[in-house]
Amino acid sequence: MFDLFFRKCPFKGEFALFGGLQEALGLISHFKLSDEDVEFVRSIMPGIDPGYVEWLRGIDCSGIRVHALKEGSACFPAVPLLRLEGPLAIVQLLETPLLCLVNYATLMTTNAARIVKAAGPGKSLLEFGLRRAQGPDGAMSASRYAYAGGFHGTSNVLAAKMLGIPVKGTHAHSFVTSFTGLDDLTVRGTGTTVKAEDGTEHDLAAQAQACLAELGFGATNEGELAAFVAYCRSYPKVCLCLVDTYDTLRSGVPNFLAVALALHRLGHKAVGIRLDSGDLAGLSVSARAMFVAAGEKIGDASFDPAKFVIVASNDINEKTLAALNAQGHEINTYGIGTHLVTCQAQPALGGVFKLVEINGNPRIKLSQDIGKVTLPGRKQAFRLYGKDGAPILDLLAEAGAPPPEVGLRVLCKHRSDAKKRCYVTPSRVELLHHLVWADGKLQAELPSLHAIRTYAQEQLALMPAACTSLSSPETYKVAVTEQLHTGLHDLWSKESSIRELE
Amino acid sequence: MFDLFFRKCPFKGEFALFGGLQEALGLISHFKLSDEDVEFVRSIMPGIDPGYVEWLRGIDCSGIRVHALKEGSACFPAVPLLRLEGPLAIVQLLETPLLCLVNYATLMTTNAARIVKAAGPGKSLLEFGLRRAQGPDGAMSASRYAYAGGFHGTSNVLAAKMLGIPVKGTHAHSFVTSFTGLDDLTVRGTGTTVKAEDGTEHDLAAQAQACLAELGFGATNEGELAAFVAYCRSYPKVCLCLVDTYDTLRSGVPNFLAVALALHRLGHKAVGIRLDSGDLAGLSVSARAMFVAAGEKIGDASFDPAKFVIVASNDINEKTLAALNAQGHEINTYGIGTHLVTCQAQPALGGVFKLVEINGNPRIKLSQDIGKVTLPGRKQAFRLYGKDGAPILDLLAEAGAPPPEVGLRVLCKHRSDAKKRCYVTPSRVELLHHLVWADGKLQAELPSLHAIRTYAQEQLALMPAACTSLSSPETYKVAVTEQLHTGLHDLWSKESSIRELE
Repeated sequence: MFDLFFRKCPFKGEFALFGGLQEALGLISHFKLSDEDVEFVRSIMPGIDPGYVEWLRGIDCSGIRVHALKEGSACFPAVPLLRLEGPLAIVQLLETPLLCLVNYATLMTTNAARIVKAAGPGKSLLEFGLRRAQGPDGAMSASRYAYAGGFHGTSNVLAAKMLGIPVKGTHAHSFVTSFTGLDDLTVRGTGTTVKAEDGTEHDLAAQAQACLAELGFGATNEGELAAFVAYCRSYPKVCLCLVDTYDTLRSGVPNFLAVALALHRLGHKAVGIRLDSGDLAGLSVSARAMFVAAGEKIGDASFDPAKFVIVASNDINEKTLAALNAQGHEINTYGIGTHLVTCQAQPALGGVFKLVEINGNPRIKLSQDIGKVTLPGRKQAFRLYGKDGAPILDLLAEAGAPPPEVGLRVLCKHRSDAKKRCYVTPSRVELLHHLVWADGKLQAELPSLHAIRTYAQEQLALMPAACTSLSSPETYKVAVTEQLHTGLHDLWSKESSIRELE
Repeated sequence: MFDLFFRKCPFKGEFALFGGLQEALGLISHFKLSDEDVEFVRSIMPGIDPGYVEWLRGIDCSGIRVHALKEGSACFPAVPLLRLEGPLAIVQLLETPLLCLVNYATLMTTNAARIVKAAGPGKSLLEFGLRRAQGPDGAMSASRYAYAGGFHGTSNVLAAKMLGIPVKGTHAHSFVTSFTGLDDLTVRGTGTTVKAEDGTEHDLAAQAQACLAELGFGATNEGELAAFVAYCRSYPKVCLCLVDTYDTLRSGVPNFLAVALALHRLGHKAVGIRLDSGDLAGLSVSARAMFVAAGEKIGDASFDPAKFVIVASNDINEKTLAALNAQGHEINTYGIGTHLVTCQAQPALGGVFKLVEINGNPRIKLSQDIGKVTLPGRKQAFRLYGKDGAPILDLLAEAGAPPPEVGLRVLCKHRSDAKKRCYVTPSRVELLHHLVWADGKLQAELPSLHAIRTYAQEQLALMPAACTSLSSPETYKVAVTEQLHTGLHDLWSKESSIRELE
């Protein structure tokens, strides 16, 4: 019996959200060595036992049983995310691939949830991390678990296609710099016309130029204006213009407003702008003020530029979000790449996979580092809820022991410090682990990525706010029963030698 | 014409090693949208122009030309790693995938090289990062570029198989904890015998127990001894024992020495031990002293335990390596996972992809952040070498301008600060970019991963030591010619509006 768990919540926080179960079960379902794999193992292990080679050819996970938390669950140190039982040698082979699939997934889901929380209510969060991930598949994992953690979309089109995540994005800076002036629209064959809602053709370039003057703006970068015209004539209903290529407030925003007004008069509607450099809070406030002023100047109630969306990107993380909120801003949506996908504040979750029982005997791993001592034995985990409906603590108990009951007081002990203990009288008891794999097949239909995302949000909402706080959170208690506590300390004494001090 | 470059060397250093070219060219060779891809794009872009859909069906990279640095090259800010020219819309589609393939590869190659350097000469470095990478493919990239940067092996068996990297590793803690005593060897059918060099069978368990007493050790953990016997009877020539499961110096090292002595007497040879927790420097010194004492106690010149290998792992990074070296230790080999593969000190390289010329016109991207202004125009890059054979600086020049010549003085200017300039009289001039893709095919055979690794090491050895220093390095100069400098500043003035201050 092996437990997969972590010892410390990531990002100096006091919660995590479990990710990676679906992919872990994919591995377990398909775990098999090809003849080529077996030959490779033979080639790198001189003197390998031929019986072992034969055994390798036949291995699969049909003899394994897996219990797991639901994907998206709020999860805490020492509570197993996965519990595996089955033939020792096979389960040991799964250690590293399972950790690979669960560690980053859980880290990313948690990171995404924290960033969504840091952005504050009503904000939209887009994952922009493909270019900064650990190669293409690292990026796919990032997109998947960013969405599971509560992000609203991705710019990764392949992830959108394969995982059904909403896809969002803007054009590139290079799209803007590729235009030197309005002539390019003709010279390059892009064209300047756009079809109005009524089907008639109009010269968007000429109308945007007229709108620039009407709005009272001075000279702007003409190449940028051409780029916006080219973009908006192709996507007159969904255009979001990147405005910081030359000068955000003196060129980008005026050019955008001019094109947006021209589009409006043809029955279309621009979406907004994206800021990608500079003082994002200040620029967003200034841009919003320019939107409002433009609306007042035009004085047409149907043209309401004050509501344009402002998207911000550029190295945004939890801290910059807190700073933006403290400063005050007009940003509606964030595009977040590097800090999200690399989990810059803590790029790895230290999940581990430890043997806790063999042939009915509990096993322990001791360590010079006391925090690395494992919790031996086959365990069940319960989440005990209080009267207010919020979880009070997670309780680990020996498997087979009678579960805690609603309304009955139960003694809960700290894992290592015997003096830290409390009584809990739960109003609700939730068994945390579910059998997900046995008899060579999945034991239940797996939820969709969308369902996991919804569940993760419900879990976060359910936890005590003090534990999910981003700054100075309180520790959510993970306790053990009296019986488990005794078992741990008996085994610890038994397996460690008593030092002779001379 | 697009340049792919970065603006700042990673890890507060002053060098990087270029990685990812082979994978980037793999993308370029196979770049094509399937019918399914095109249908997906159509589904997410309502109102898409049918001509655009048709165009998407036919795209490939046959019209693209790519120049690149050699993979493994020492590389510096602003010097393009890749230069792409070809149809604008296609090159723009390559922006994000190319950045994805080059950013992490370059970061990892550089990180690995720094860690090898931090470990010091004569040390062996093993990549142990699979469980902490961004999913399985992130881990494959990590293994590949750790090796390119100078690591000596990986514990990732798939990477070993697919990329030809030497594979190294030890057993797991769970292998040790799975044994409760020597009886398990019989009960579980593992067996206790081992074949000596002369073909005779011997009871390794009994002999190891006798050796424990002969070496004068007290009681050790018997389950651990059983695990070492089981492991060493299977791999009597290559066994490396993980000694920290219960108590490194009182159980792990004695058990290892006992088994190693027993093996020695049967004509075999153990490899050494692995430390995975505690004070690694102190434990390595103590373990080495125990090895030496065991050799003296046995007094058989053919048994030389002082030379056993000591492998250390457990959250090692550049800083801990420096601390270990300052403290003094007896470690021969490091296994490094988390900090290596996540590049914890800086988990992303900020490589960007910028349009620098279109239809013969140089283009620029301005920014609120002056460091984000691009270097316009089609450029060549030269590395100018001094009399001592070391590079003096990299010089960017307009393409087509006459190249610098050996023995002729050339004026080299700072990119933005006109007052910073110098004359260089090169003893050797190296053209840095090579045509790698044109006419729809590779322009030269790509070097193997091993050759890239060798080249990277040569490059590091060639650079001025002050620039590759890990702490307080000097900046390696990247200069521009007078002509390029003028072009940059003329275009900058032209594209930026002059503010009206009132």
